[in-house]
Amino acid sequence: MAKKTTKRAQKKVAAKKADATKREQAAAPKTKIRYDRILVRYGEMALKSDVVRRRMEDRLLGNIRSGLDKMQIKYVLHKEMGRIFVETRQIEETVGVLTHIFGLVSVSPVQTRVIGSSLEKIAETAERIGRTFITSKDTFALRARRTGNENFTSKMIEREAGGRVQDATQARVDLDNPDKTLYVEVRQNKAYFYIEEHACPGGLPLGTQGRVVILFSGSVDAAAAAWLMMKRGCTVVPIYFESSPYTDASTDERAARVFETLREWSHGNKMSLRRVPHGKALFMFTEECRDEHLDVLSKRQMLRVANLIAKQEGARAVVTGDNLNQNASQTLENMAVVDRASELPVFRPVLTWDKEEILKLAQRIGAFEAATKEVKPAPRSRRSFPAVRLEDIEREEQKVDVKKLAEEAAEPVSSKTSS
Amino acid sequence: MAKKTTKRAQKKVAAKKADATKREQAAAPKTKIRYDRILVRYGEMALKSDVVRRRMEDRLLGNIRSGLDKMQIKYVLHKEMGRIFVETRQIEETVGVLTHIFGLVSVSPVQTRVIGSSLEKIAETAERIGRTFITSKDTFALRARRTGNENFTSKMIEREAGGRVQDATQARVDLDNPDKTLYVEVRQNKAYFYIEEHACPGGLPLGTQGRVVILFSGSVDAAAAAWLMMKRGCTVVPIYFESSPYTDASTDERAARVFETLREWSHGNKMSLRRVPHGKALFMFTEECRDEHLDVLSKRQMLRVANLIAKQEGARAVVTGDNLNQNASQTLENMAVVDRASELPVFRPVLTWDKEEILKLAQRIGAFEAATKEVKPAPRSRRSFPAVRLEDIEREEQKVDVKKLAEEAAEPVSSKTSS
Repeated sequence: MAKKTTKRAQKKVAAKKADATKREQAAAPKTKIRYDRILVRYGEMALKSDVVRRRMEDRLLGNIRSGLDKMQIKYVLHKEMGRIFVETRQIEETVGVLTHIFGLVSVSPVQTRVIGSSLEKIAETAERIGRTFITSKDTFALRARRTGNENFTSKMIEREAGGRVQDATQARVDLDNPDKTLYVEVRQNKAYFYIEEHACPGGLPLGTQGRVVILFSGSVDAAAAAWLMMKRGCTVVPIYFESSPYTDASTDERAARVFETLREWSHGNKMSLRRVPHGKALFMFTEECRDEHLDVLSKRQMLRVANLIAKQEGARAVVTGDNLNQNASQTLENMAVVDRASELPVFRPVLTWDKEEILKLAQRIGAFEAATKEVKPAPRSRRSFPAVRLEDIEREEQKVDVKKLAEEAAEPVSSKTSS
Repeated sequence: MAKKTTKRAQKKVAAKKADATKREQAAAPKTKIRYDRILVRYGEMALKSDVVRRRMEDRLLGNIRSGLDKMQIKYVLHKEMGRIFVETRQIEETVGVLTHIFGLVSVSPVQTRVIGSSLEKIAETAERIGRTFITSKDTFALRARRTGNENFTSKMIEREAGGRVQDATQARVDLDNPDKTLYVEVRQNKAYFYIEEHACPGGLPLGTQGRVVILFSGSVDAAAAAWLMMKRGCTVVPIYFESSPYTDASTDERAARVFETLREWSHGNKMSLRRVPHGKALFMFTEECRDEHLDVLSKRQMLRVANLIAKQEGARAVVTGDNLNQNASQTLENMAVVDRASELPVFRPVLTWDKEEILKLAQRIGAFEAATKEVKPAPRSRRSFPAVRLEDIEREEQKVDVKKLAEEAAEPVSSKTSS
């Protein structure tokens, strides 16, 4: 039952994505604008104090550089008054990197024109660009934005340059719902022309918020949880619990692949997947303990290991992909019992999300396909208890040396770490 | 600095909302369809086992009934094969209630026609409805969906009924991006015609997931956090920490107003705001303890009180509106120290959200205006420490009888509870 509905939800998401792509292509103008740089907008850091903001901006610029360098892109980066500009000839590749940088809001490839203080030069360029992508059958709008102290206003730009475009193309102006839009942003003595805006993830620059470890199975939930913590600036250490002989290579591969998609979001931040053995613990629990306690026992054991690894890594919290009542073991009662095995706070970024919202985010991250691959699952309670009691669990745990098992699993063996 | 930017963000959100309203009105067809009932779609419960699903559906129907009764709406409710139908003449009021019910996905007012198995009758009604809202200048699409075993397919409906509408209106068919869309849903021997779909919040039926308490200041963060827990089926007990003489009536009023907006989402679920005194604790901390520890001391004290109240209320977790690094005290380090004062798990539904996302959700909830009212704030550290140490905090707490203060605050006095 559960599987069927999830498949349906997946199909729905995939169909929506295809739709979006179609729309995008239909909307993408066939243009010959000669882009020479990318205008980069960034956000929330303005909320911070000067010192914190400067530190965050430095980190942001570092992350951008690191991403562009990794792709061997040639570029010049400069920052001015709340904007970043990347001069480059590799527009498309650069957009690809920038749309994966946390802390950025959006980017637009622009054509730049030095204008002095000449409104005429703006209108001239607008006309030339307008001709390349607006036809007489289109409706259009020209939208201007001006920073600084030019001797004209943005309204004047819109009237003057918009008029020129209209004369040249015979297109009709529609300010409310135009088929095509030409944007002009004027700063100091330059005008930047653009027609497209690519969304970036927002959030805070990766690496500005300290470290967390995450229980990382490679599921959509884990991928979404990890990405959301990264979005908010945290360095993430994913821990994969290898459960052979219960699981097989398919499970390991899923985790590795999903981890690789997360790495594409980690510019400027070294990330590695930590693999730890969990099969022995599962064996002991299934042999020695009551079946209906297995889910909670296994999760508590993972938290124990995660706490030890957090200590090694200097991490301040444990993150999980838990989702309230997605399955019978993720109840308030059971989560309360699970949390008691952790000294560090347990964060659950997708706790209140619906499954469909999580799948949509997985799509956006690029982790959907890898994370929804079928894998051989680890053993679970045949009958799961919605409200396990702490004292029952602690009694079961006395049958197994959970502390020693956790220490063995968390042992830092260099061969267990892949980067 | 912070205030200014928040204002700007608020304005932006407000402007976007105005835009959306304009678009909606522009799109809203001036039609004379005689709606006779509302088709209700609900979601995720299909993922559950039969027993759990039935329990959730019962709860969902109960919540709907409770909401409609409260508004004194006359209706007949019936459920069939994964759909709910509400027969009523008070269409608009009913939509107003249904779009505030957790667990519902969307609703559409419909006109119903008994069709037997006649494709002709569908086409006839489609033509009549088509004439009321599609003109020759529009492009349109007719979309059909069929459940059951009629002797025709949904494609046949689309061809036949779509053709009739086209002949009658002279409008052009556009299946990709139509100006107007007429939907037909056929089940058993009835056809339901609709042209609009109102989004509902999704999630799980309120009251199916046990109780949680929440630190409820009346801020946008607290409102969003409470709503998200409710969305996932939890019964929420908001605790408001009254900090007079530091704060004044404006602060209390904000909490009361935001609480009232949450109540509009609580159909079928009795909710009351629990007020507890916090001024005395603040006084002791400001008098006896180091200023830079105040934020963490105050938060830990709130958690202590919340744990006591949770015991009285049978709640299983404490919820906060914490947001990673929104201000200097919401760091990973400080949250870890705060959490140590709680025996119950601490859930933070908006932990990884950007401020703009939270403001947007507050808009959707209807809490934006009340929650963004300026209030007299409680005292905070003049200089807040991003990484307070647990041992320092515990030393400070020995100067004050935190346990006794918490017990006094959590004392269940009937006059402290308003419903």
